[in-house]
Amino acid sequence: MKINTLLTPLSVDELYFTKKNVVVIDVLRATTTIVTALQNGAKEIIPVSSVEFAMTVSGNSFKGHTLLGGERNTLKIEGFALGNSPLDYKREIIEGKSIVLFTTNGSKAIVKAKYAANLFILSFLNANAVKEKMLETDEDWEILCSGNNGKFSYEDSVCAGMLITLIQNAKEEIILDDSSKTCKIIFDKHKKKLSKMLAETEHGQKLIESGFNEDLDFAAQQNVCDIVPFYQTGVIKAIVK
Amino acid sequence: MKINTLLTPLSVDELYFTKKNVVVIDVLRATTTIVTALQNGAKEIIPVSSVEFAMTVSGNSFKGHTLLGGERNTLKIEGFALGNSPLDYKREIIEGKSIVLFTTNGSKAIVKAKYAANLFILSFLNANAVKEKMLETDEDWEILCSGNNGKFSYEDSVCAGMLITLIQNAKEEIILDDSSKTCKIIFDKHKKKLSKMLAETEHGQKLIESGFNEDLDFAAQQNVCDIVPFYQTGVIKAIVK
Repeated sequence: MKINTLLTPLSVDELYFTKKNVVVIDVLRATTTIVTALQNGAKEIIPVSSVEFAMTVSGNSFKGHTLLGGERNTLKIEGFALGNSPLDYKREIIEGKSIVLFTTNGSKAIVKAKYAANLFILSFLNANAVKEKMLETDEDWEILCSGNNGKFSYEDSVCAGMLITLIQNAKEEIILDDSSKTCKIIFDKHKKKLSKMLAETEHGQKLIESGFNEDLDFAAQQNVCDIVPFYQTGVIKAIVK
Repeated sequence: MKINTLLTPLSVDELYFTKKNVVVIDVLRATTTIVTALQNGAKEIIPVSSVEFAMTVSGNSFKGHTLLGGERNTLKIEGFALGNSPLDYKREIIEGKSIVLFTTNGSKAIVKAKYAANLFILSFLNANAVKEKMLETDEDWEILCSGNNGKFSYEDSVCAGMLITLIQNAKEEIILDDSSKTCKIIFDKHKKKLSKMLAETEHGQKLIESGFNEDLDFAAQQNVCDIVPFYQTGVIKAIVK
């Protein structure tokens, strides 16, 4: 089994992912939020790559059953029911609902990887569950870090490093590309203090400035749920291990 | 002083570099080769971003005084006098000559950063000399890793980490972005065995397969020359410290 890690979505095009097995990460905050929303009973998440498309999808026949969620520049978008904080996605608000999600990095990365054979959503919360699903096949995997406006995201790379470490601990002869090796090294440096690591990242600093301190501690929780969000034909649903 | 590192040239456009201070790295092999060529008496290097432009530049009034150098897929281009191995650039061949250089990653990254106020060329060979030149100003710096066909390059990032470490050892209160921190961590892991590190990278493996083993040991030499290649209006010349 070979694991390649893309540190940002920029280095490849959509077709790169065709029929590949892909795991998408956006720790702060889209993939943490998706895992949380499904854990709290959302029916499904519909990731979109533009606000306009989010409005179109939610405004048609789905009206009443859908909620709009997401952010621009870390803040909730005007007219949206939910922001991109996982703490917004409480059971009493989202249970049974379809959520149309637009975010600066994460939802776009998921949409970019839409031609994948298998597309899982990873955060620190569900890394062990994703690892278990990945090990059901002996095929190669791509880990796609959503990045930070086209630039490197430290926290996504640390999370990739956690997944890679879990896989290597469970299975011999995993071949890593150079970026996967890098992610493993930086995870190893921070594995005992993920919350502190998040607070020191560029994106973490920006969230703290915007008042989202609690999101960092929430996103730093390791293996607290068994949800594996799975994308297929435009929609993300939960596989519960 | 703030240091930002771009792990590949893809995340920004040409205008991003306007009036900034930039250091470009392509350890395997363009920037190692440029440092070596200038050390061995080349008059100047003209980096170009296409083979066609290389042919045009060298075929006109410069004929006789210029040599074409570079590679496609690691190998010398048909009709070119020199490849992209630093070992090709011997004094008896290149002294006093202008060299038009086209390479897959490095020459293109340099051309992309052409609007910089100061643009220096870095390799392991001249890291200390580049550090000294950078410390002549208290301004911010961008480190541009040329990458590997748009993807992350381990060796460029380790070299960025070396430069960052040298700067931090010489000057207090350097602010690093997340990618700079990552480069520093992976340099720290490999600093005592750069040659081994190069041989284990994806690009190093490819060069070994193509018979360029000696290039790796050559490129792994630390601080063996005082040349600082400086790009201005299309041409790279040496500043000797």
